[in-house]
Amino acid sequence: MLSKAEIKRVSSYKEAKYRNQDMVFVVEGVKMVDELIASGFEIERIFGTRKWMDDNTQKVGSRADEVIEVGEDELKKISSLITPNQVLAIVKAPTPKDIDFKDRLVIALDQINDPGNLGTIIRIADWFGVEDIICSESTVDQYNPKAIQSTMGSLFRVNISYVNLEATLKTLSKTYPIYGTVVKNGEDIYQTQLKTQGIIIIGSESHGISKEILPLINHPLTIPNFSINQSAESLNASIATGIVLSEFRRRG
Amino acid sequence: MLSKAEIKRVSSYKEAKYRNQDMVFVVEGVKMVDELIASGFEIERIFGTRKWMDDNTQKVGSRADEVIEVGEDELKKISSLITPNQVLAIVKAPTPKDIDFKDRLVIALDQINDPGNLGTIIRIADWFGVEDIICSESTVDQYNPKAIQSTMGSLFRVNISYVNLEATLKTLSKTYPIYGTVVKNGEDIYQTQLKTQGIIIIGSESHGISKEILPLINHPLTIPNFSINQSAESLNASIATGIVLSEFRRRG
Repeated sequence: MLSKAEIKRVSSYKEAKYRNQDMVFVVEGVKMVDELIASGFEIERIFGTRKWMDDNTQKVGSRADEVIEVGEDELKKISSLITPNQVLAIVKAPTPKDIDFKDRLVIALDQINDPGNLGTIIRIADWFGVEDIICSESTVDQYNPKAIQSTMGSLFRVNISYVNLEATLKTLSKTYPIYGTVVKNGEDIYQTQLKTQGIIIIGSESHGISKEILPLINHPLTIPNFSINQSAESLNASIATGIVLSEFRRRG
Repeated sequence: MLSKAEIKRVSSYKEAKYRNQDMVFVVEGVKMVDELIASGFEIERIFGTRKWMDDNTQKVGSRADEVIEVGEDELKKISSLITPNQVLAIVKAPTPKDIDFKDRLVIALDQINDPGNLGTIIRIADWFGVEDIICSESTVDQYNPKAIQSTMGSLFRVNISYVNLEATLKTLSKTYPIYGTVVKNGEDIYQTQLKTQGIIIIGSESHGISKEILPLINHPLTIPNFSINQSAESLNASIATGIVLSEFRRRG
């Protein structure tokens, strides 16, 4: 049984403000919680239905202090999902690791607003072995429930931090490769040289890369447009990320 | 002023059943309706607010019979959008064109369920100059409101048909290239030969390519997994489509 106060507290974590205040986030569903447990992230509380408890006796046994059984109705009250899926966990938000910009590719997100896009980009980074993502402070919260669901567990394997993007880029040496995707007039990504270290900036869905960041890019990249009469307008931010990372990894 | 019957009719088009019955679909928002008008698709009715009418006097002038002014409240009643955007049009669904499978790439969708994914795939096809998409009958309806919004207008430039996919593939010659994306054990897409004609099959988000279709593929393709310990599970269907089409176009 959950107290009213507990229901209120957990429900409040649907909003970034309350998550940040308590430095926690929420993970939902059987598969995501499996990945959470495997990840080593610090779990504060698991709310599981009878079915989940029965299916996971081993996991429950070793975590008796953290696990609370809840009814379907209670789970519905605290869940962000339209159809809650057996289990919900409260997790301590880890401190982002410092990034060593040498010898690796880092993704930088400049004002990504859509949580589904953010989650998908995290999933793509994981697939292509990119371990670090830096986000502008204006980018949607990585712990937004929809973003978390879209990561399909990749959230636990990618180091994500929120920074002043302009200031961070300005700390880098002038010769450090800063790539950025632009819809037109960049270097043809299929033809240009791509290094194995650098930052790849992905701009917002509607406005592209912001005007403060654009002059800091030393390698603008364009994915050629093959549409009839160039009528297609642009690719979605997460699709562009997938194509760009595929190009980097293919060659190097 | 809209009659109750008119509101009911237009609202009913949120469901595929009623759209199919009347062979129409609905396009919403200033930008999408602009693209619609430019497309040459046959428009049955445009419902525009005063603002839209004022901003589009020329378009309205030449289409006086089709255009009806509506209040914001009325638009809200017939719209599928949380925030309706000035205009909504009822469009005649075109008859899909027969596809000549020679000398071109065709995308085949095998049970894509998510309308956002379908719309995004249509947008990607348009970008990469793929003019035809065939969908299994189990694929979500192209005229689903969320699918339409996700196409960003590409819907008007890609020829989409719903077919018995298995039967259609079986009509093709045994040597005709049938590509399909598989998570593991396909040919490495970066290494294998890719032709300029063929069908590229994209499987469902959760189950991949269905078991009836799998044996019909003569070129299974895999996007290499660069994640640490191969821990990333798969790429989203639309991301995989973007990467695969990029590879085909890059080379040929």
